[in-house]
Amino acid sequence: MTAPVLRRPDDLSPTAPTAPTVPPAALLAQVLGPGLDQVAQQLAATAVRRDREGGHAAEQRELIRASGLLALTIPEAHGGLGGGIPAFYDVVRRLARVDSALAHVLAFHHLQLYGVSLYGGPAATAHGARHLRETAEQRLFWGNALNPADTRLTAVRDGAGWRLQGVKGFCSGALGSDRLTVSATTDEGGFLIGIVPTRREGVHVEQDWDAFGQRQTDSGTVRFEAVRLDDEELLQVPGQGPTPRATLRSQIAQLIMAHLYLGLAEGAFDEARRYTATRARPWSASGVARAVDDPLVQHRYGDLWLKVRAAQAVAADAVDLLRRALERGDALTAQERGEVALAIAEAKVLSHRAGVEVGSQLFELTGARSTAAEFGLDRFWRNARVHTLHDPVDYKLRDLGRFFLDGRIPEPTAYS
Amino acid sequence: MTAPVLRRPDDLSPTAPTAPTVPPAALLAQVLGPGLDQVAQQLAATAVRRDREGGHAAEQRELIRASGLLALTIPEAHGGLGGGIPAFYDVVRRLARVDSALAHVLAFHHLQLYGVSLYGGPAATAHGARHLRETAEQRLFWGNALNPADTRLTAVRDGAGWRLQGVKGFCSGALGSDRLTVSATTDEGGFLIGIVPTRREGVHVEQDWDAFGQRQTDSGTVRFEAVRLDDEELLQVPGQGPTPRATLRSQIAQLIMAHLYLGLAEGAFDEARRYTATRARPWSASGVARAVDDPLVQHRYGDLWLKVRAAQAVAADAVDLLRRALERGDALTAQERGEVALAIAEAKVLSHRAGVEVGSQLFELTGARSTAAEFGLDRFWRNARVHTLHDPVDYKLRDLGRFFLDGRIPEPTAYS
Amino acid sequence: MTAPVLRRPDDLSPTAPTAPTVPPAALLAQVLGPGLDQVAQQLAATAVRRDREGGHAAEQRELIRASGLLALTIPEAHGGLGGGIPAFYDVVRRLARVDSALAHVLAFHHLQLYGVSLYGGPAATAHGARHLRETAEQRLFWGNALNPADTRLTAVRDGAGWRLQGVKGFCSGALGSDRLTVSATTDEGGFLIGIVPTRREGVHVEQDWDAFGQRQTDSGTVRFEAVRLDDEELLQVPGQGPTPRATLRSQIAQLIMAHLYLGLAEGAFDEARRYTATRARPWSASGVARAVDDPLVQHRYGDLWLKVRAAQAVAADAVDLLRRALERGDALTAQERGEVALAIAEAKVLSHRAGVEVGSQLFELTGARSTAAEFGLDRFWRNARVHTLHDPVDYKLRDLGRFFLDGRIPEPTAYS
Amino acid sequence: MTAPVLRRPDDLSPTAPTAPTVPPAALLAQVLGPGLDQVAQQLAATAVRRDREGGHAAEQRELIRASGLLALTIPEAHGGLGGGIPAFYDVVRRLARVDSALAHVLAFHHLQLYGVSLYGGPAATAHGARHLRETAEQRLFWGNALNPADTRLTAVRDGAGWRLQGVKGFCSGALGSDRLTVSATTDEGGFLIGIVPTRREGVHVEQDWDAFGQRQTDSGTVRFEAVRLDDEELLQVPGQGPTPRATLRSQIAQLIMAHLYLGLAEGAFDEARRYTATRARPWSASGVARAVDDPLVQHRYGDLWLKVRAAQAVAADAVDLLRRALERGDALTAQERGEVALAIAEAKVLSHRAGVEVGSQLFELTGARSTAAEFGLDRFWRNARVHTLHDPVDYKLRDLGRFFLDGRIPEPTAYS
Repeated sequence: MTAPVLRRPDDLSPTAPTAPTVPPAALLAQVLGPGLDQVAQQLAATAVRRDREGGHAAEQRELIRASGLLALTIPEAHGGLGGGIPAFYDVVRRLARVDSALAHVLAFHHLQLYGVSLYGGPAATAHGARHLRETAEQRLFWGNALNPADTRLTAVRDGAGWRLQGVKGFCSGALGSDRLTVSATTDEGGFLIGIVPTRREGVHVEQDWDAFGQRQTDSGTVRFEAVRLDDEELLQVPGQGPTPRATLRSQIAQLIMAHLYLGLAEGAFDEARRYTATRARPWSASGVARAVDDPLVQHRYGDLWLKVRAAQAVAADAVDLLRRALERGDALTAQERGEVALAIAEAKVLSHRAGVEVGSQLFELTGARSTAAEFGLDRFWRNARVHTLHDPVDYKLRDLGRFFLDGRIPEPTAYS
Repeated sequence: MTAPVLRRPDDLSPTAPTAPTVPPAALLAQVLGPGLDQVAQQLAATAVRRDREGGHAAEQRELIRASGLLALTIPEAHGGLGGGIPAFYDVVRRLARVDSALAHVLAFHHLQLYGVSLYGGPAATAHGARHLRETAEQRLFWGNALNPADTRLTAVRDGAGWRLQGVKGFCSGALGSDRLTVSATTDEGGFLIGIVPTRREGVHVEQDWDAFGQRQTDSGTVRFEAVRLDDEELLQVPGQGPTPRATLRSQIAQLIMAHLYLGLAEGAFDEARRYTATRARPWSASGVARAVDDPLVQHRYGDLWLKVRAAQAVAADAVDLLRRALERGDALTAQERGEVALAIAEAKVLSHRAGVEVGSQLFELTGARSTAAEFGLDRFWRNARVHTLHDPVDYKLRDLGRFFLDGRIPEPTAYS
Repeated sequence: MTAPVLRRPDDLSPTAPTAPTVPPAALLAQVLGPGLDQVAQQLAATAVRRDREGGHAAEQRELIRASGLLALTIPEAHGGLGGGIPAFYDVVRRLARVDSALAHVLAFHHLQLYGVSLYGGPAATAHGARHLRETAEQRLFWGNALNPADTRLTAVRDGAGWRLQGVKGFCSGALGSDRLTVSATTDEGGFLIGIVPTRREGVHVEQDWDAFGQRQTDSGTVRFEAVRLDDEELLQVPGQGPTPRATLRSQIAQLIMAHLYLGLAEGAFDEARRYTATRARPWSASGVARAVDDPLVQHRYGDLWLKVRAAQAVAADAVDLLRRALERGDALTAQERGEVALAIAEAKVLSHRAGVEVGSQLFELTGARSTAAEFGLDRFWRNARVHTLHDPVDYKLRDLGRFFLDGRIPEPTAYS
Repeated sequence: MTAPVLRRPDDLSPTAPTAPTVPPAALLAQVLGPGLDQVAQQLAATAVRRDREGGHAAEQRELIRASGLLALTIPEAHGGLGGGIPAFYDVVRRLARVDSALAHVLAFHHLQLYGVSLYGGPAATAHGARHLRETAEQRLFWGNALNPADTRLTAVRDGAGWRLQGVKGFCSGALGSDRLTVSATTDEGGFLIGIVPTRREGVHVEQDWDAFGQRQTDSGTVRFEAVRLDDEELLQVPGQGPTPRATLRSQIAQLIMAHLYLGLAEGAFDEARRYTATRARPWSASGVARAVDDPLVQHRYGDLWLKVRAAQAVAADAVDLLRRALERGDALTAQERGEVALAIAEAKVLSHRAGVEVGSQLFELTGARSTAAEFGLDRFWRNARVHTLHDPVDYKLRDLGRFFLDGRIPEPTAYS
């Protein structure tokens, strides 16, 4: 099927430009403060129902669009909020506590924007500022069609540009987006990355995402039928070797994962303890009047908490290191980039485990009645379980161990 | 709502009697051999779809009814197959590999029949043989309304019998059944257990089971409105203290749980390895051509397998001990009964862990694409997760540890 | 037996005063930099041998004394180095990597000094500055005779002071010390804490510490035979309720434990990886030429590392929170103190696990030959195992879980 | 150094022949019953002291020699007790509970005897009966010099036999033995296995075993200086491919390991619970009067027990499968042999984990005072830790996982 709303033939912006009348710092404080709280509450109010129903969360995406969060990481100089890396990950984590699917969609929107800043092609270097400004002004939503493990999309030379032909899978956030970041193998050999407006002719966003978790990430297939791509829309030109700085993009993505898992772990922990405190009954053999007084229950909560806590602390360090690496700009060395990758691998493994294990083990503490569909408590495990499969955790552990054994840093790839 | 099919006013059997024309031993061999294989295949063919849809599996229950499995544990002397304890648990485990919900319904059918043999009241001692024979001949399905933790059902003296009033929750297999085993607190104090035909006037089986797993166990609520219960229908009369042998019923139930979890673990392991062998792709960084050649994948499968294997071995020992305890009849001592309970606690904890952990961890080995709804691989975790909450695993561990510290055996309760 | 060196009858200082001729900041930098490196190297050079021999490390204690580290936490105003909480814990951790016994002795020396600052009795409030100055000038070593779980030491009123009679166990660092901090129950009820010079008449330090780990902590018994204790030597007078700030002392102690365990984990990890990299042989079935290239070895190192890493990150947060709590002074509330205790409990559990598990699991990665006595690699497990039993980790987990269930903070005790 | 007692120039037996006057079955019952109990008690009485002292347990080896256990697995037809595989492993496990070093020495004695039955060379096929009979009659002790990973021993053709030159490491039980089983690479290529009397000229048993655990296994180096080896002393001639049956020897060895680890786990569990029951104090915050009543203590004991229990159950199945494989004789196929190896791998991993983890975790339940050297409780961990490094557990897990993924059975090697 085609993209659901096709109001204009091609690249025009779908929403009217906004005119911020408050200074950026105050706006940022509002967006991260009451604004974020409100979005989180609105998402939470319908999260259980929407998880059950799956599909495209058009209404909730408009809430996010209206909140200003789409401009969070865009520098003030380009009309954005200048939110910075720590604020970005904090938002991802806080939204993931209540709705990890929409948190993912928002996070991947910003991941595409980071690509616009980091890549070395003309769409980044010469036109990046314009893309960011348009995004801020028109509140554009970006989606991902960049999955490098899927090699079915090819680019063929066509005059001063290219024609894209084929399909791309796992395109998170593509449905309902305004811009796509796309990767393709070229007929001349090599590999390009570019920007394609989602409504451009020949782009067909399928609504075929059907995993048992992260159900509203719209991570389906995008078909490209002879889609035009101009040279100036290239983020990375074929054969261009990325700088260490440009390869930080995959690390930004990995740390997004970590914060989604961490948010899931925090959300699961929090819902579980509230359930135990307010609804759970003490076990007959426990000899206590309230479930919260059972030492075996208390002990297990302590144990579960430490999974969350360890991931939090290590993730915070990784955020700080990534921030500093980005601030180094083009001076960033491959070795420094490798150390960022290791720090993020640590955070990713620990939050992976926290997300899956808290999501599964919480039920030992909430009991049989908590499995009723109305509570939707299984969504934490399902969401964490699906999302943590993005790339294998065992290779993160291998990368870490290998480093300590012979000092090798992870090779910069789309996953490491 | 009422029971869905009400062909006759009260107790009459829903199906025509069967006339076995083969000797019992040959019949047993057929039922456990090709018959069981066929049922398992038929359940497997629709398991993913039915898990998604939930609700009452009327058709599949008729398959089970037709297979002869309802008479499995009924002694030959009473028209049954005389299948014995090891055969019973083997059937439960094998069906649970493909459909743990219907395996549970069948297992709890037999649990009620064990109650008819074990309890000391007139329905067991004086009329038990008749109940069993009717069940075998008419292929009756028994459901459970005995949940002792739910005290909302009361029995009031009414002439030579009782009137049941109130509700009972978690009544597995009640919907679509022909007989119910019921517990109630009486107005004279104490506690009775009796047999009520499901179609008796005033019995209303709700279809309100709505957990995220074990979706077709029909474990909803049963309402009783002034339902008649005759004294001769009592399995346990109020005030009657159960013999050690009678208290084995809760251990039979606990070992059913263990075999359901074990079957889930085995089924999950088996589906996972077939997926990895036939569909999974090797990870790009692995350097191997097939996922099955990745040492990290192999290693994890070894680790997962040992969770299954340990549970299998310990469960087999528990089955053997339970069989011998049942053979001891009324000579069974409280101490011997306690040792059975400890052996079954061991099996239950290990199979609990195997079921939940294999169901969750398998995805590390099958990868992102295996989360598509079409495969339904998450049903193993959901089914294990819901069912393992029957009673808290931590109190099984406590019972075991306490025994080793001061020799105390578990108190005979509905759960221990 | 009595203290080994009894040069003077009572309280006189055993070493000549030092006259620092460099400004404190430079001195601190020297002590924490090259000075600490040198002490660590000197301890490392003999650590395996001394672990085997056990007993009192008189020579190594003099190295520490000479290094200036005894004045590390004493404020500059009182002649010390003004090292602060983060520097203190860093020193403890770094020394524990190579010698956790002497790291403990040094850490507990400073713990006694923190008591001199925190308690409310005259020896703290009126005379604390003098005690600290003497310690800095004369390089005094303090030992612990404060173990509150041992109630065998009593204080009887005697004129303007007390007489101490009885014994105290687990007196870390008492042997070879110059000052002891002592707790005793009084004949008037209640509980006092005071300072006793180790060479005072009637003090007998036994050399009876004989655990299988932490062998040179001198944590034996101290006997007191009618030992004088003046009122002005009281750190806490009987009946005096400690302020929240004073109860931070047990948290300082708990965080010392955490850093000892963390140092052990780091030391074990580091020795293991160097062994694997330089000595271990690849397993015959691995198909690789070097042990460090075995993916199963790399994977396990990654896993072990994350135990260390998680503990590091959480401990760093706890140090920061404790630092801020100490800076709050008497304004510290019970609630704030409780939050410090929770943060330190987190660090303690994670470092406990890291210490024990890295110390045990490293051998899977170093192999059979690494168990030769010459390498002494088992000392990490033995040291961690003995020291982590100071107080039960399960009650830390309970405290954490309880907090999340009903908001209760840990009761201020000697352990929480 | 040379072997400590050299009463006779070469092969003569060190002890006078025994003349059993009771029928073998009765003798077996005595040896396995009161005899074994007595040996176990005698070993237990001095185990802590001997672990501390290390070195050669000459006296205890004579106790074992006198007990008749050296003839346990020798068929009755050859003058032995005909004890069979289950009895053998039961003895190993029961002795390992109290002294895993001497249990190992005894077990490896029998491992050499199994080699005499299984190998295809003349010393097995033509002269095996005589070797076994001599062993039974003269109560000979066999030691191991067969470590195939150590290739420093070579055999050079010398007339009708060979000359052995070089060294062999990890020669368990060599010191104090009467016979050695030796492997060497030959100058003609290939690999031989033979029998060498320990007192033969040129054999020098070093007393250089110095690991931190299993301290009395005498697993040091043996030097061979031009030691004669006749062709008829060959158990396996160079170039001879072993039958599947002959390769069971390494599986017998692997299952010995499993039973040593299992015995260690059982011994550790048993000493721990007795310590907790009789000596441990309840924790102050527990609110219970006895440590055994603390739910957190009970829970942990339950958890620890299941590690032991799972290993027991899986090991029992492996013993049964190995027994049946040995009974198949030369009809045993490679596939059947592979299935034995998998079953034994399962047992080995689970008992490995039980041994190490119970040995380490028990201290959480016995507390700080239990680390005093007098109790020697750390010997369980040290013994398990050293012995479990015989070959890497991770490759057992890999073998298991690989089998389930593509059906490959483990290659027959000295370790698999």
